[in-house]
Amino acid sequence: MPKESAQPWTLARRAELMNPSFIREILKVTERPGIISFAGGLPSPKTFPVDAFAQACAQVLRSDGAAALQYAASEGYGPLREAVAAMLPWKVDPDHVLITTGSQQGLDLVAKILVDHGSRVLVETPTYLGALQAFTPMEPQIVSVDSDDEGVRVEDLDGKAEGARFLYVLPNFQNPTGRTMSEARRAALSARAARLGLPLVEDNPYGDLWFDAAPPLPLSARNPDGCVYLGSFSKVLAPGLRLGFLVAPPAIFPKLLQAKQAADLHSPSFNQRMVSDVLKDGFLDRHVPTIRALYRSQRDAMLAALAREMRGLDVTWNTPVGGMFLWARLPAGVSAVDLLPKAVDRGVAFVPGAAFYAEDADARTLRLSFVTASHEQIDTGVAALAQVIREATKR
Amino acid sequence: MPKESAQPWTLARRAELMNPSFIREILKVTERPGIISFAGGLPSPKTFPVDAFAQACAQVLRSDGAAALQYAASEGYGPLREAVAAMLPWKVDPDHVLITTGSQQGLDLVAKILVDHGSRVLVETPTYLGALQAFTPMEPQIVSVDSDDEGVRVEDLDGKAEGARFLYVLPNFQNPTGRTMSEARRAALSARAARLGLPLVEDNPYGDLWFDAAPPLPLSARNPDGCVYLGSFSKVLAPGLRLGFLVAPPAIFPKLLQAKQAADLHSPSFNQRMVSDVLKDGFLDRHVPTIRALYRSQRDAMLAALAREMRGLDVTWNTPVGGMFLWARLPAGVSAVDLLPKAVDRGVAFVPGAAFYAEDADARTLRLSFVTASHEQIDTGVAALAQVIREATKR
Repeated sequence: MPKESAQPWTLARRAELMNPSFIREILKVTERPGIISFAGGLPSPKTFPVDAFAQACAQVLRSDGAAALQYAASEGYGPLREAVAAMLPWKVDPDHVLITTGSQQGLDLVAKILVDHGSRVLVETPTYLGALQAFTPMEPQIVSVDSDDEGVRVEDLDGKAEGARFLYVLPNFQNPTGRTMSEARRAALSARAARLGLPLVEDNPYGDLWFDAAPPLPLSARNPDGCVYLGSFSKVLAPGLRLGFLVAPPAIFPKLLQAKQAADLHSPSFNQRMVSDVLKDGFLDRHVPTIRALYRSQRDAMLAALAREMRGLDVTWNTPVGGMFLWARLPAGVSAVDLLPKAVDRGVAFVPGAAFYAEDADARTLRLSFVTASHEQIDTGVAALAQVIREATKR
Repeated sequence: MPKESAQPWTLARRAELMNPSFIREILKVTERPGIISFAGGLPSPKTFPVDAFAQACAQVLRSDGAAALQYAASEGYGPLREAVAAMLPWKVDPDHVLITTGSQQGLDLVAKILVDHGSRVLVETPTYLGALQAFTPMEPQIVSVDSDDEGVRVEDLDGKAEGARFLYVLPNFQNPTGRTMSEARRAALSARAARLGLPLVEDNPYGDLWFDAAPPLPLSARNPDGCVYLGSFSKVLAPGLRLGFLVAPPAIFPKLLQAKQAADLHSPSFNQRMVSDVLKDGFLDRHVPTIRALYRSQRDAMLAALAREMRGLDVTWNTPVGGMFLWARLPAGVSAVDLLPKAVDRGVAFVPGAAFYAEDADARTLRLSFVTASHEQIDTGVAALAQVIREATKR
């Protein structure tokens, strides 16, 4: 009845900048039954400690149901903040730990308190798509820093760091490339960033998923006052609880806390107590090695399949030493975006690398997740992928 | 070692606008043991269906643990979206329901997609503090609309609505005042807003907590294309799960969804399935009446104590017909902010009304929550409050 103005809405400028997630749209296609997907960034459900969660739920509700179900402090549940501080490989004050609704929320909060319209934000080439999505609504100028197999090239910072609000880096088994920043690169980056007055936002969701040796010390451990560190329980326990955390220096912690309170008051108290209960008695020390072993064997299966199936094709790929992803590059003239629908027709999916570049995408790149498909599916999927590449290069 | 720039951080302009929550700081004081608190906005833990949650946790993990613990769609869990749509008193398409991490997140998302720096946003006088906190980071110009016991005065919109991005209203048992918008006022507001092209953001966390009769139909039911509706499971189930929802028209739903994805990917899939399981078989139809009965008896206890203890003092208060809060006004010359420390010294706490005004606060007002204290504590606390008011007026 009162329909005089059917369309009264005026969108904020930032809303116009948001785009449907490229990956999201792709994932819809890859959810078709029968598709072998190397596209998703999903941990293997085999690694979810369902029984431990069931016990923890029962325990938390029995021993402290009223508190677990009530409103709680925005900072997070005290014992969980303490457990996070104790887990990290440098001296962290639990008062500097903020529990977040997944580490994605950490990216949102960081952007909220540090980014004005037009602020320069530096990212790796390529970089995590979800970070670009979290930063974009705050309308930054996103600038890519040249990167190689060890991460950002430190010399490229000099012209770009001035006035930048921060550099966002994912040093361990990066999403999307699977690459890891070497000790030498970390030392150089840490020193250069400190000299340039460039804050670092260090994202480390995969750091515990190493295959042969733990990665070098985080950047945050080298200069805690100049870094925000983001971590997650999604890859070592389960993503469906949406629990992550950040560690921030006193200079900005209070503002992150206020932004957190305004965003969702606090992360679920029930989930925080449940995870705190699961973490007791060194659970992760027993559990995480099983994930490492599984993911290493998955990586090996994919490397073997690539070596076998891509023979004679000008396809290259790296050998990640941890995490969930492998980065490949197609022959000259073959675009991963163009290849995807053909691959899907053959029953296999991946994510074109172009999705992960803030500027100047390398159209030949693609991201392959090796953790969710079975070894048999990996063999079949990589063979199908090789076949569509072969056809694409024949023309 | 690399400490050349100990303070490299530049805060965004919006961060400077954020303040520690007034209520937060107060709550810290009121958490002192022995304080009778009418300050918090906490539901009574007596109403938390702990056993139903325990059963649902076990059921969800047993029947579908892998999916419940995995990443999931940003929109929310399908059956929960359908349950929400079915619960609402107008025809709602589940595709227009977005599950949020508490309804606080709904406010954050709405501000993100609708508010630019300097955009005018209209609010009631007084209004929910958490909404002011959620809107402020997006740097709006917040304008208060004159309000009386029935909510916003519709005639005051004419000069203020032009160019406003939306009017934020909480029509049922408002936080902080406990007041309810009448049917006549709703009809008038709905018609006027439609004529003015003024979108409404309708927040309804307390609507189910009515004492004698259900409140009139939501504004959103009258003009769904011109309204965003925010709801919550915090008051009918438990806040510690952090689950709320919003209903938005197709004109803006996709942008809210994109903002949601960037904010925390999705709300906890485990919690969504757990609540979906609890809701089965009409659980709320049996459970919510017990909350209503409890809160009505709590309200009655506070009204009786106020009538008894405030006799002879020029204190006024309203009679909420639902919800958790009652609104009182102190004698002329007595400021609630000044009174609070004296009250806390006497062992009783409340929230000064000044916290809830976007502009021109009425310093004599205060918010009293009647739901968490026992009847005996209500008697003792109100008597103590009367005593400090008596002393303040004697001077």
